Amino acid sequence: MMGWAEFLEAGAGTNVTAVTPDELEAMIRGIGAERYHNLHPFHKLLHGGELNKGQVQAWALNRYYYQAVIPRKDCALMGTMHDREMRREWRARYFDHDGLGEDDGGIERWLTLTSALGLDRDYVISTKGILSGTRHACDAYVHFVHDKPLLEGIASSLTELFAPKIHSERIAGMLENYDFIDDSMMGYFRKRLTQAPRDVEFALKYVKENARTVPEQQASLRALLFKTGVLWAQLDALYGAYVAPGHIPPGAFDPAKDA
Amino acid sequence: MMGWAEFLEAGAGTNVTAVTPDELEAMIRGIGAERYHNLHPFHKLLHGGELNKGQVQAWALNRYYYQAVIPRKDCALMGTMHDREMRREWRARYFDHDGLGEDDGGIERWLTLTSALGLDRDYVISTKGILSGTRHACDAYVHFVHDKPLLEGIASSLTELFAPKIHSERIAGMLENYDFIDDSMMGYFRKRLTQAPRDVEFALKYVKENARTVPEQQASLRALLFKTGVLWAQLDALYGAYVAPGHIPPGAFDPAKDA
Repeated sequence: MMGWAEFLEAGAGTNVTAVTPDELEAMIRGIGAERYHNLHPFHKLLHGGELNKGQVQAWALNRYYYQAVIPRKDCALMGTMHDREMRREWRARYFDHDGLGEDDGGIERWLTLTSALGLDRDYVISTKGILSGTRHACDAYVHFVHDKPLLEGIASSLTELFAPKIHSERIAGMLENYDFIDDSMMGYFRKRLTQAPRDVEFALKYVKENARTVPEQQASLRALLFKTGVLWAQLDALYGAYVAPGHIPPGAFDPAKDA
Repeated sequence: MMGWAEFLEAGAGTNVTAVTPDELEAMIRGIGAERYHNLHPFHKLLHGGELNKGQVQAWALNRYYYQAVIPRKDCALMGTMHDREMRREWRARYFDHDGLGEDDGGIERWLTLTSALGLDRDYVISTKGILSGTRHACDAYVHFVHDKPLLEGIASSLTELFAPKIHSERIAGMLENYDFIDDSMMGYFRKRLTQAPRDVEFALKYVKENARTVPEQQASLRALLFKTGVLWAQLDALYGAYVAPGHIPPGAFDPAKDA
């Protein structure tokens, strides 16, 4: 079978033909194996206990913006869905983050983590201390699903295929390696272990069924590549500002002054 | 006079009052003095001759995307202008980049630079080797002017107030310090020395005349802060990938393989 990179390089006028749904899934998983942010050096430091508390605070503060953007992304995507049943399916993701009934939702669970790490709740919510790189990456995700066809918006969510592994690594690694982290702070990740597989099943099925032509399949794979870039760039920005070279941009959270 | 940071912190319900147009200009210049990307460590390395050719290639390749985005940004902004005379004024910026008549424009001048640095023209134009951080920052700028009121879109262009200094430093520093750079490659920057001051005069006058209330003045300053973040984040991404720690993201330009 052709690899995803070769399949993407093939342009119009070549005699590349559409792949089967299962071949497409294999390419999707191939992108995860090479591009998902569990491969980023920052994650290895985070899970391995090699960060200090200020660096973990910077991660949690910046990642808050990603958490806060996800329900906006899902609402924007639902705004492009003409089919009521599809919206009723997809909104489970929206509820995951903004809450429903007894469940306060993922954003609130994230704020439990940032507060337990000693960050002021209003400061976190204001997002005024986050990196520009974080803001641009997260906003790019919202704009992407707003601007692109529904198929690509759904395909961009498929990084969730690779999420459960990273979440379980993170829970184990962070509990074991940091004395300022305890089980009560891991609620967000624990919840995602069951939410993400349920969510992604629908999305994967949709992409496999609806990306049938070469352009649709290429666009779906490119959407997933775009999304791996959204995740990767956030860790690049954190690494550069808080690990090495440690250039904190003017105005961004500084553990020495703001924590 | 109150500083820009203090003025921005002041919320509704405080008794902060609007500043005069000249005080607003002083705050704008104050933001430049603290946030413009001439202060970024990457610029010091670039101008000081401390980068190798692969690092300069990476800079030129990524910055190409910014150059290519600027006319889209200006067109998007012109799309929000209801006044024909204003569009006829602003379009000089658009011509600067896409060209008019005898002038091939700034994008073409940038491609002269990338080609002279040994980068394949089609590879540069494809933008497939740029960093996600570059793409997100530049796209954020286009979305900003599309989504925000005209005043903020115009205010975000005011970084040009600070550009001529950086361009003349760059011409002198790069010619002096790199044996692979010669005068024929500096056409873009040389041209900007006369274009930018002409362009920014109109924008500064507009912001001073139209940002009269506290919310308008705060929004104008925040737009400029946003834009300094767009420029700063691009250099953060370059520094992290190509200087230190030197983590080139998967798929991005690698001087060892792609040049």
